Amino acid sequence: MTSDARWVVPFRDGDRTQRSLLGGKGANLCEMTNLGLPVPPGFIVTTEACRSYRAEGGQVPGDLFRQMDEALTELEEATGRRLGDPEAPLLLAVRSGAVFSMPGMMDTVLDLGSTPVTHPGLVALGGELFAWDARRRFLEMFGKVVLGVPEEAFSQVLDRAIAEAGVKDERFLTPDQMAQVVSGFRAAIRDAGVILPEDPREQLRMAVEAVFRSWDGDRAVAYREMEGIDHDLGTAVNVQMMVFGNLNQRSASGVAFTRDPATGENVPYGDFLTAAQGEDVVAGTRLPEPLATLADDFPEAHEELVANLDRLEAHYRDMCDIEFTIEDDRLWMLQTRVGKRSALAALNIAMDLVDEGTITREEAVRRVTPVQVERLLHPRFADRKVPVLTTGLAASPGAATGKIVFSSEEARDRGRAGEQVILVRGETSPEDLEGMVASVGLLTARGGLVSHAAVVARGLGKPAVCGASALDIRLEDQTVRVGETVLHHDDVISIDGTTGKVAVGEVELVIPKDDPRLDTLLEWADQFRDIHIFANADTPDDARRALAAGAEGIGLCRTEHQFLGERLPLIRQIILSRSLEQEREALIPLEAAQRQDFEELFQVMDGKKVVIRLLDPPLHEFLPSLVDLKVKHALGTLDAEGERLLEAAVRLHEHDPMLGVRGIRLGVLRPAVYAGQVRAIIGAAVARKEAGGDPRPEIMLPLISTAHELAWGLNIVHSTAREVMDAAGVEVDYTTATMIETPRAALRAEHLAPQVDAFSFGTNDLTQLVFGLSRDDVEVTYLPSAMELDLMPIQPFATIDRNGVGVLVEMATRAGRGVNPDLVTGICGEHGGDPETIRFCHELGMTHVSASASRIKVARLAAAHAALAQSGPDASA
Amino acid sequence: MTSDARWVVPFRDGDRTQRSLLGGKGANLCEMTNLGLPVPPGFIVTTEACRSYRAEGGQVPGDLFRQMDEALTELEEATGRRLGDPEAPLLLAVRSGAVFSMPGMMDTVLDLGSTPVTHPGLVALGGELFAWDARRRFLEMFGKVVLGVPEEAFSQVLDRAIAEAGVKDERFLTPDQMAQVVSGFRAAIRDAGVILPEDPREQLRMAVEAVFRSWDGDRAVAYREMEGIDHDLGTAVNVQMMVFGNLNQRSASGVAFTRDPATGENVPYGDFLTAAQGEDVVAGTRLPEPLATLADDFPEAHEELVANLDRLEAHYRDMCDIEFTIEDDRLWMLQTRVGKRSALAALNIAMDLVDEGTITREEAVRRVTPVQVERLLHPRFADRKVPVLTTGLAASPGAATGKIVFSSEEARDRGRAGEQVILVRGETSPEDLEGMVASVGLLTARGGLVSHAAVVARGLGKPAVCGASALDIRLEDQTVRVGETVLHHDDVISIDGTTGKVAVGEVELVIPKDDPRLDTLLEWADQFRDIHIFANADTPDDARRALAAGAEGIGLCRTEHQFLGERLPLIRQIILSRSLEQEREALIPLEAAQRQDFEELFQVMDGKKVVIRLLDPPLHEFLPSLVDLKVKHALGTLDAEGERLLEAAVRLHEHDPMLGVRGIRLGVLRPAVYAGQVRAIIGAAVARKEAGGDPRPEIMLPLISTAHELAWGLNIVHSTAREVMDAAGVEVDYTTATMIETPRAALRAEHLAPQVDAFSFGTNDLTQLVFGLSRDDVEVTYLPSAMELDLMPIQPFATIDRNGVGVLVEMATRAGRGVNPDLVTGICGEHGGDPETIRFCHELGMTHVSASASRIKVARLAAAHAALAQSGPDASA
Repeated sequence: MTSDARWVVPFRDGDRTQRSLLGGKGANLCEMTNLGLPVPPGFIVTTEACRSYRAEGGQVPGDLFRQMDEALTELEEATGRRLGDPEAPLLLAVRSGAVFSMPGMMDTVLDLGSTPVTHPGLVALGGELFAWDARRRFLEMFGKVVLGVPEEAFSQVLDRAIAEAGVKDERFLTPDQMAQVVSGFRAAIRDAGVILPEDPREQLRMAVEAVFRSWDGDRAVAYREMEGIDHDLGTAVNVQMMVFGNLNQRSASGVAFTRDPATGENVPYGDFLTAAQGEDVVAGTRLPEPLATLADDFPEAHEELVANLDRLEAHYRDMCDIEFTIEDDRLWMLQTRVGKRSALAALNIAMDLVDEGTITREEAVRRVTPVQVERLLHPRFADRKVPVLTTGLAASPGAATGKIVFSSEEARDRGRAGEQVILVRGETSPEDLEGMVASVGLLTARGGLVSHAAVVARGLGKPAVCGASALDIRLEDQTVRVGETVLHHDDVISIDGTTGKVAVGEVELVIPKDDPRLDTLLEWADQFRDIHIFANADTPDDARRALAAGAEGIGLCRTEHQFLGERLPLIRQIILSRSLEQEREALIPLEAAQRQDFEELFQVMDGKKVVIRLLDPPLHEFLPSLVDLKVKHALGTLDAEGERLLEAAVRLHEHDPMLGVRGIRLGVLRPAVYAGQVRAIIGAAVARKEAGGDPRPEIMLPLISTAHELAWGLNIVHSTAREVMDAAGVEVDYTTATMIETPRAALRAEHLAPQVDAFSFGTNDLTQLVFGLSRDDVEVTYLPSAMELDLMPIQPFATIDRNGVGVLVEMATRAGRGVNPDLVTGICGEHGGDPETIRFCHELGMTHVSASASRIKVARLAAAHAALAQSGPDASA
Repeated sequence: MTSDARWVVPFRDGDRTQRSLLGGKGANLCEMTNLGLPVPPGFIVTTEACRSYRAEGGQVPGDLFRQMDEALTELEEATGRRLGDPEAPLLLAVRSGAVFSMPGMMDTVLDLGSTPVTHPGLVALGGELFAWDARRRFLEMFGKVVLGVPEEAFSQVLDRAIAEAGVKDERFLTPDQMAQVVSGFRAAIRDAGVILPEDPREQLRMAVEAVFRSWDGDRAVAYREMEGIDHDLGTAVNVQMMVFGNLNQRSASGVAFTRDPATGENVPYGDFLTAAQGEDVVAGTRLPEPLATLADDFPEAHEELVANLDRLEAHYRDMCDIEFTIEDDRLWMLQTRVGKRSALAALNIAMDLVDEGTITREEAVRRVTPVQVERLLHPRFADRKVPVLTTGLAASPGAATGKIVFSSEEARDRGRAGEQVILVRGETSPEDLEGMVASVGLLTARGGLVSHAAVVARGLGKPAVCGASALDIRLEDQTVRVGETVLHHDDVISIDGTTGKVAVGEVELVIPKDDPRLDTLLEWADQFRDIHIFANADTPDDARRALAAGAEGIGLCRTEHQFLGERLPLIRQIILSRSLEQEREALIPLEAAQRQDFEELFQVMDGKKVVIRLLDPPLHEFLPSLVDLKVKHALGTLDAEGERLLEAAVRLHEHDPMLGVRGIRLGVLRPAVYAGQVRAIIGAAVARKEAGGDPRPEIMLPLISTAHELAWGLNIVHSTAREVMDAAGVEVDYTTATMIETPRAALRAEHLAPQVDAFSFGTNDLTQLVFGLSRDDVEVTYLPSAMELDLMPIQPFATIDRNGVGVLVEMATRAGRGVNPDLVTGICGEHGGDPETIRFCHELGMTHVSASASRIKVARLAAAHAALAQSGPDASA
């Protein structure tokens, strides 16, 4: 760096676009200054200076102090006060100001310039106590931050003084007592073996260096690690004239928002403390008053403040928050930025700003995040700090309160009778479905985010906390224990499936209402996105919910859900059948039932695509648990049917069911089952067509890993469809798809794509196979440790792993389109509702993503954000 | 095709290099003709003609019949006989002759030219019976092959005639009776509604076309599918003068080998039938005489034959087999080819030919196949056709006979006492180890080729048949049933782990001896290969066996095997430990035990690399089965320790253990276990070094899927090793490796390679993950069906799947070497012993393959073959 470099920028020379040079706080101080708002004058030591300091191993840039001196001289002229001047002393605030907010992570020195020499001037300004108090504050901050004296050295002195004076806190000390404290602080610094320079210019230089150093402090480094902030950015330092909210009773400090950050209502919001500094407001030892009362106490300052807030919001075209100080009835603006807000406020402010003509619809869409939409959709605990019993996996969003029941039958009966019950189980199986439907929420001790309980709950739109491994459920005495706590059957608990929290007793819930403004925002969002949003929906009810949420089709209908409940005996007959004849007979009623399901589904989804996946799970999933059967067998309590089921369960038992006989493999071993499903689908479509409908089925084959498997499956599909259509004399426009969920399918995409109309990436299974990681088994064991130790780049089941899974998805998409340019591509599964994953899909030019009904709205917005991100930054930013 | 094409080639115009044009048989007939051997003259209709016929939808090429006529005229001139000539009739044999042998799959017409017109000439040649018999043979073959008359039409006539004559078979019919049969055959043809043309030229044309058509017959197509022979090759047709081994008692037909095809002994070998045609020898209705006695009956022909055999072997530079006919004391050579031989003969012949100076060492290496080496190493059933009770998976090669025992304790006690017992189990677990060691063989009803039983058996070099799912083992009455057969405890069974066969009772076994010639051949092979052969070996005993088989190092030492047997209680203590303190205490004796193991291992493998994989399997594998514990718990028979084990089994239970907490994940959750292992390894190496040894440990981390996981694991390795070495004041040259067994590791190879010295591809797991297929679960369910339906390109657990798994291996190898040019690469696991996989590894330039001890010798040869294949075809071929 040459000495010509500009290390120092006065507030009047900067603006808010210079964030990376001036830091966020400094850039906005410049902006306010240039708007003519009453900002205490000052200058900024730039991030560039900090970077140079770090690069040179802790040497300040050669010209820095000269430039600071120049800026200081200018500041003295502007304020009519001088640093170190006994009569009109200038006091300075020296604050860090990084590019990205790092609240509380770095150091600040206030009241710099309060020295024995300037004491008379300070007394003249605010009296004896004020003067000694400023000295005290300075010595403590400078001592700690710049000289490295331990905090205890100061707190001991102060505590002793307070105790000796017999008062509540330091505000009630007399000037003499405060003078004693100052003298004690000076002794503490001396005793620490460090030297306090008396020259305030020297102090200023040291304070600036100390702020530079604090960038590399342990806490700051750890915070940046956590937030992913580049360590090389460095911090700016804001040097500004002190103003005193604690000067007298005509002084105050406060914070304000241009609108209500909780609701978005267009009224200024905030609070303040009379006769206090900003740090006193933050410390929270005194209860602040609401901003509205400022009009009573400081009518002129209030009027000016409200006008400034209007001015700032119009200028920033968004809700802002500010810090202000009133010194002897004069208003000073200390900070501003675009304010943080609740989800509801984000929505309302964006919509209001559009209504007010301040921002465009595109800007409104950009300003609401998918996470905020998620919050707007589901009930949640009203109090974030409610004491929790235990925390499990956030398996299905929403919160609920209800009585504990341990059996699905009881849940079914009492739930249908209108009682609010929460089903608490070790894990769930298909047999539990009716009980799950009738409960207000689900809580399981085992299983991950793709466990049966979690998947079904999301499909039903019901809150669920899964894998709460601290739960010790004892059916023998109908209790559930967590450590020392024992809960009984019928005790009330509350669960929050958005956070995974479980609480004892009834917890107050926030229940969002359907918000037409959200629907309007999402309709706008739909105009910006170019990726379709489909739903994972298995039943007509699921489909209705998905449509209501704005789904454009069904991207995944899992047919196994048609085999549960009252149909379970039918599929068990198929499993137990000992001849093709028996199998055929058992298939007849099942096929008829499925056909009815599909007819209703096509009716609900008339004119929209419905992607139906043929049976995927291993057959033993339709049997009772092998352990239960074996135990009953040993106890001699199994009937003849039970013994047959046991025999089948033993025969079908698998070491790793995820990798066993499922998907197309099941089809190969039980071709009649697949053929029956195709007959039901095409038969239903024929019936809908005859009734004047517009059914659009797509038949999808699961767990393909070779081109020949796909060809084999498609042959069954096409030949069966042909038979049905020929028999009916009606043609149906059906299409076909293959799941890409094994790495091999992705690697062989070139040979799969010519055979089908569509690829659907099953990123749940693909992630499990790429990592060799069973979500069910590691989500509550290995993954938490791995995330903590930073061994995983991301939570790969929440967000697509671009570096591994994503590489295969990209290879397959490219290879598939290379041989079949019309190939439809999409993803289904949990990732389909994740914003970052949607962005990835958008970048790959996928046709659609398919998400569970409860995430459709989130996905619509995320898709718009993905498209807007690609089209360039927000013009208003 | 123009009419200039050469569709017909006389024997004198071809040679053995023209196999693809002339077919195998034809090319060798040409070769023998040109060697001056007595081949009945003839010509070949080329495969090109057949291909044209097929391409034109069954139209013979325009010029074919004219060229056939020309060749026939020439043939008539050469033989002095003419087709259809009443006095000197020429009879023809019309035989198929494909490029690759398709024995018995295609059609033949003999005695063509025996018609009513030529009858007098045939009588003159061989008498009335001979003449009628030739007519009969012709009519039957032409009727069946060319005219499509069902075989029964002829057999009925013949059977009736034999019955009426009251004789044993057709050879004992009188001329009149045979004339009746001929007349009956003609009637049968007529009755079938087809017309037999009387012109033998027309018959010849039809016969050639029939042979063409037989190329696309069902059996031939199925055979080619099975053998992977291209359907478009087509067949040649050999048209040749008939010679008659059945002319009189001075005639005979036989087959001969230039050496003994069973042992390789250098004496002609074969057998013959007097007064018989070749097909009579094949039919097996008469017992042929050994070739040696030919010298007594036909001394001149014998002498000539032996000379011809010598001639052929010298010319082909290999053992040949031939078919010959003696017609009225005159020897004719009907066919030759390089002969098929037993494994033992292959070895002996190759070694003898080198000794004789006929072939080079390289040729000898090329001429013995890995499969033959495999056969030479293990006991097998002496009789291939022994009746089998059932067939399971060929899990560990070798055969054994012994008494059935159902419990490992009993197997251990009786086996140690010297009894031959076969342990029969549903499946095995680590608790069964001692019983497995003491048994002569293992038989399980469940589990695939990587089940516990299979892996352990291969490690122990013990025969095993696994997954024999027809077995119904009933421990309550100590029986095992297969269908109706009931076997009891102590009954004798025999198993062949090379074929998967299980037989009742004692079966005679062939027990190969150590053959120094094999070792010599393999030493030669070692000079041609450039890929190192390492062993999978877990114990010092394994290592000794591997060294004896020629292993150059240990590529995979699975440390979990150190936790079995008497150490099982120690690892269980670790699992049950409730504090780090308890865990540490339990680790102490385990660490000491491991250290001893490693010391002995390093001593055995002094100066050779030993790649040690840290603990891989999930901890619940060291617990009793959850089902057993639950059952005992329900029955109230579980003691306090049992209840604790049950609690742990429930806690550690996994849905998909393959994808659960194992490998590095286990290390992350139990870092003390990994650190203890590293201390044991480095401690052992230090001790060996202090004792003057040269230990070369490589520490390998399993189931890596991210670069950070690897870094985390390596940090434990290096920091622990540092501590141990510093404490001892001894430096050890250890290296590190990562398994590449998840697809993600392969995809991220670029980020793993800089951290380690070596990649070891765990292709077992990689294959399972790439296909999403658990070997244990699908090997006896889905895979057999998939192979049958041709849905899998290969058996992916036997031979590496080049199109899927191989793509990842190649990507990873390339990426890894790109950033770390010195990277050592190898594969371990089942594929390491497979010749095709070794070829793949060789092509990728891998450093080594690691195979189980029992496959080391096979792998050495396969590696040489891979190198020789790349260096070009056999110069002698």
